[in-house]
Amino acid sequence: MGIEKNNNNKNMVNYSRNKNNQKNYGKSIHSKNRTGYQSGKKFFNSNSKRNSSRINYKRNQRVEENKPLPSVKVSFLGGLNEIGKNITLFECENEIIVIDCGMAFPDGEMLGVDLVIPDFTYLIQNKDRVKAILLTHGHEDHIGGLPYLLTEMSVPIYGTPLTLGLVENKLKEHSLLKQTELRTLKAGESVKIGNTTAEFIHVNHSIPDAVGIALHTPAGTIVHTGDFKIDCTPISGGMIDLSRFARLGDEGVLALMSDSTNASREGYTPTEHTVYDSFKNLFQKAEKQRIIIATFASNVNRVQQIINCAKKFGRKVAFSGRSMINYMNVASNLGYLDIPENIIIDIDRIPQYPPEQIVLVTTGSQGEPMSALSRMAFSDHRKITVGAGDFIIISANPIPGNERSVGNVVDELLKKGCKVVYESMYEVHVSGHACAEEHKILTSLVKPKYFIPVHGEQKHLRKSQDIAVSLGIDRKNTFIADIGTTLELNRDYIKELPKVPAGKVFVDGFGVGDVGSIVLRDRKHLAQDGLIIIVASLDVYDGHVISGPDIVSRGFVYVRESEELMADVKRTALSVLDDCCERNVHEWGVIKNRIKDDVSKVISGKTGRSPMILPILMEV
Amino acid sequence: MGIEKNNNNKNMVNYSRNKNNQKNYGKSIHSKNRTGYQSGKKFFNSNSKRNSSRINYKRNQRVEENKPLPSVKVSFLGGLNEIGKNITLFECENEIIVIDCGMAFPDGEMLGVDLVIPDFTYLIQNKDRVKAILLTHGHEDHIGGLPYLLTEMSVPIYGTPLTLGLVENKLKEHSLLKQTELRTLKAGESVKIGNTTAEFIHVNHSIPDAVGIALHTPAGTIVHTGDFKIDCTPISGGMIDLSRFARLGDEGVLALMSDSTNASREGYTPTEHTVYDSFKNLFQKAEKQRIIIATFASNVNRVQQIINCAKKFGRKVAFSGRSMINYMNVASNLGYLDIPENIIIDIDRIPQYPPEQIVLVTTGSQGEPMSALSRMAFSDHRKITVGAGDFIIISANPIPGNERSVGNVVDELLKKGCKVVYESMYEVHVSGHACAEEHKILTSLVKPKYFIPVHGEQKHLRKSQDIAVSLGIDRKNTFIADIGTTLELNRDYIKELPKVPAGKVFVDGFGVGDVGSIVLRDRKHLAQDGLIIIVASLDVYDGHVISGPDIVSRGFVYVRESEELMADVKRTALSVLDDCCERNVHEWGVIKNRIKDDVSKVISGKTGRSPMILPILMEV
Repeated sequence: MGIEKNNNNKNMVNYSRNKNNQKNYGKSIHSKNRTGYQSGKKFFNSNSKRNSSRINYKRNQRVEENKPLPSVKVSFLGGLNEIGKNITLFECENEIIVIDCGMAFPDGEMLGVDLVIPDFTYLIQNKDRVKAILLTHGHEDHIGGLPYLLTEMSVPIYGTPLTLGLVENKLKEHSLLKQTELRTLKAGESVKIGNTTAEFIHVNHSIPDAVGIALHTPAGTIVHTGDFKIDCTPISGGMIDLSRFARLGDEGVLALMSDSTNASREGYTPTEHTVYDSFKNLFQKAEKQRIIIATFASNVNRVQQIINCAKKFGRKVAFSGRSMINYMNVASNLGYLDIPENIIIDIDRIPQYPPEQIVLVTTGSQGEPMSALSRMAFSDHRKITVGAGDFIIISANPIPGNERSVGNVVDELLKKGCKVVYESMYEVHVSGHACAEEHKILTSLVKPKYFIPVHGEQKHLRKSQDIAVSLGIDRKNTFIADIGTTLELNRDYIKELPKVPAGKVFVDGFGVGDVGSIVLRDRKHLAQDGLIIIVASLDVYDGHVISGPDIVSRGFVYVRESEELMADVKRTALSVLDDCCERNVHEWGVIKNRIKDDVSKVISGKTGRSPMILPILMEV
Repeated sequence: MGIEKNNNNKNMVNYSRNKNNQKNYGKSIHSKNRTGYQSGKKFFNSNSKRNSSRINYKRNQRVEENKPLPSVKVSFLGGLNEIGKNITLFECENEIIVIDCGMAFPDGEMLGVDLVIPDFTYLIQNKDRVKAILLTHGHEDHIGGLPYLLTEMSVPIYGTPLTLGLVENKLKEHSLLKQTELRTLKAGESVKIGNTTAEFIHVNHSIPDAVGIALHTPAGTIVHTGDFKIDCTPISGGMIDLSRFARLGDEGVLALMSDSTNASREGYTPTEHTVYDSFKNLFQKAEKQRIIIATFASNVNRVQQIINCAKKFGRKVAFSGRSMINYMNVASNLGYLDIPENIIIDIDRIPQYPPEQIVLVTTGSQGEPMSALSRMAFSDHRKITVGAGDFIIISANPIPGNERSVGNVVDELLKKGCKVVYESMYEVHVSGHACAEEHKILTSLVKPKYFIPVHGEQKHLRKSQDIAVSLGIDRKNTFIADIGTTLELNRDYIKELPKVPAGKVFVDGFGVGDVGSIVLRDRKHLAQDGLIIIVASLDVYDGHVISGPDIVSRGFVYVRESEELMADVKRTALSVLDDCCERNVHEWGVIKNRIKDDVSKVISGKTGRSPMILPILMEV
């Protein structure tokens, strides 16, 4: 086995390639070449300028015939059968490496919940063995869980400069920055972490500086795509490093974990560049109107295009929305935004310009109730009043579940006389995730022995799996996991181990995990039909009613119009109390249950509803 | 002016046509031809065989120069800036005719609400003047409000046979059938109601026997499309009666109210027939699997195609879901379903056949939690267990807002190993509403003086308006209304009158309208952060605490893990009570507010949450 240096790519030194393996795709190449696989000298070239540990090491790991094959355990704490809170654990020879640590947004059932994080129990229980968290990019569903994990344990975090810039802000807010070690690793660089070498590979996505990760473990190389798409003409950072993925494939990849979000969409995701042409047309169309564009704050390249277009049409650019301003600060400080001089103005200076010289870039593309665009729509924005003079572009698709709120915002803006470009009108948005054809290319290049779709609901995972199988990967070598699933794999086998703890932990206010299924069930009950409280003071000796029962209700009926019903409830409760006193029933549990039952019957018979009924008895 | 009998259409005798007007489209023809417009003899041919009043009358209404022009007032109680609860009022010379009386489904903000109906105040206040309700078709958003109106007033109802069949069932459930006069009017027939003649015109839609309505009022003819699409090759009932719409246009139409639901979609809605080819392919693909198809229970033609396909492939058909069985009974009793012999089996007999001989048609295409398909997905169906042997087709698109619940059902089915066809895979669904090109055709044929888009949110109404304007209708003659809006119009003017009462009335259990904004606000508050009840018994004389304060919480935190917090709350409340007692504060309102304020501060400081705080004081 020799070393092949790839001279076409200065930034990257190649893994050795077993030439005999090159055309064995789909035929379980790894098990046929035990001794050759993963052996040979490997160089990593690290250009990291910040914190990152530079390495340039040689490895010559010859598998001894008598030793059992090393294996790697992969556990999923999130990102499967759900959108968001992506986090995957890799455990090899007792060392744990984590890829991503995201959060998810609550769905409609999770009443009052602010956000959802993974169950970190397994990590916390094994915190001494956790060597690093590697971040693929700076979206909340990949970094948003960090503050909650880092209050429980300390671990170095590796990410690209923009990703760490965003993490920095987040940790500052949670007062966790000082105690946390952030290590920059750029795309194309590698780092040795314990027995494993982690390599960042540039990918395209809807935020700059996104990477896929190759983990070169003693058991073989595992490739995790992160979130990706193939954009041959991206706005910045260059095309996804397909050639690196290809070389990894040639060298032999044990397993591929692939972002399945858009796997069920046919064809290709268009290049981000297409949006520019749409913007140009719309800027022309807007003529003398003020332009307001809502998009994802993290989509730095989208904002770059807006700035470019604004420059072309002689408009100033202002930003609105806390997260928009935050992202733009980080991105421009780190050089990810190319801002011409004198083009950015503060939102307060908008009135100093005629409308045709303004572009306002704002949050709220998902119709979030407290976002800047929603406030404008519902006349609740402190600084911007919208109307017939505004040309509003929503440069985003509604994420499933948000269709209604986006629709409501659009309707309000239209009622105010604004011109609104929304949904798929004029191609003002492209996705950040790969569609089916892109999946085929990446998987074909990487040629993994095992294929494990990640990042998606069941339907996305299945589609991703089907695509892999259509490329010739044996279905037995594909695996649809769930959160908690632990797989053990090496080139001889893949098998499922007992699950690790995993689930959805709810964050509500400052509370993490104190809202569980019982609390949610109560909230749901209260939300449906409200509650009726029946309170009475009873004599401590014989249990006769001293005061009450008083009836208090909330969220049930408008009490002033339901006096008769309330009188019925009172009568019913009183008769239970009297009856219990007479029969010498003094167990309060029994009395309360009887009140509940009897009052329920009355309420349900008269109203067809089932409010929560809360009897409260006091001893006097 | 002469009478022109249209010999091409035996079922219909024509309105007279002012030949001079034929090519004046877009040039305000009506005002130019005052004396000629709407004059001439008119014949109506009625074939009604059931209840409907037969008429065959002559009218010779010559406008006297000195009399003020009659006008018609149009009021909207629903269907504008919302999807559902369609209902429009037409008032001419003191007589009110109503088109449709629908309900809507609650949105996510309307916690615990079962359904939403229009505010009927105006109709009830004027019940003596309400002459008829005309129904365009049998969908819930057009007939679902009837039971709630009919408990308040009595009025004859006109509809096509299928529509009335469905209304009959509904009124039976509400014990309103006997007291209600149902009058059948078929497409192509007319009926004179007071000073107005109402004419039913056949249209295509996703339920059979749908009609548009022409109201020939003393002020002119108003055409209301109902819900419609143009299907040149429908499954039953024939193509929309475009020629009648065309003749009406030639004769002169004062105003067109047009279903805008799909106006923002480009192109044409495909014919219902396209679904058959998809079904055929999928039935082939399903091979030895059992087929389960979820679709709208009301889409009788869709079910007809499923039955046809089942016959072709030698499968039996069973139905699941209460509304599916209900609709199929009505439709087959009235002859709207053509069922081959021995093809329908009861759901209990499914186990007697091999899976490849079964098609199960079920409700639940919108992921409704209690529907048959949801129950199957979540292993909660009493009779059907699904798994790897099932080929499931969701023959419907998610209605906006339902994407998430449909997605969840699909995911559960996939997890069980079912093959699932969903979303836009394989074209297994077509809409029942006209797209932009169909709108152009209908509006161009009807050539109204005034154009008023109906049935849709603001964005749909705007699109519909834009299309009308693009056809040459003066924008000043188009009008986007809201619920409550009252327009007065005749061939000289259109103007807005003061609004009539309109709104959303919530039905919750048996209660109609007793859940209002205060109750909803409380439910929302309870849903967000739950509640804390603080109850204490005070001495009736000096207000010292005799018992308590006791703290009860629901939906806030898991109490057993928050004992310290609860102790803090108790301490805080007690100190307020003691302090008030000391200072001789005996006004309970004041004491309660102080408890609320102080406890709120403690809770918010420690948890970042704002539960509802309910102090209850008892005098002993």
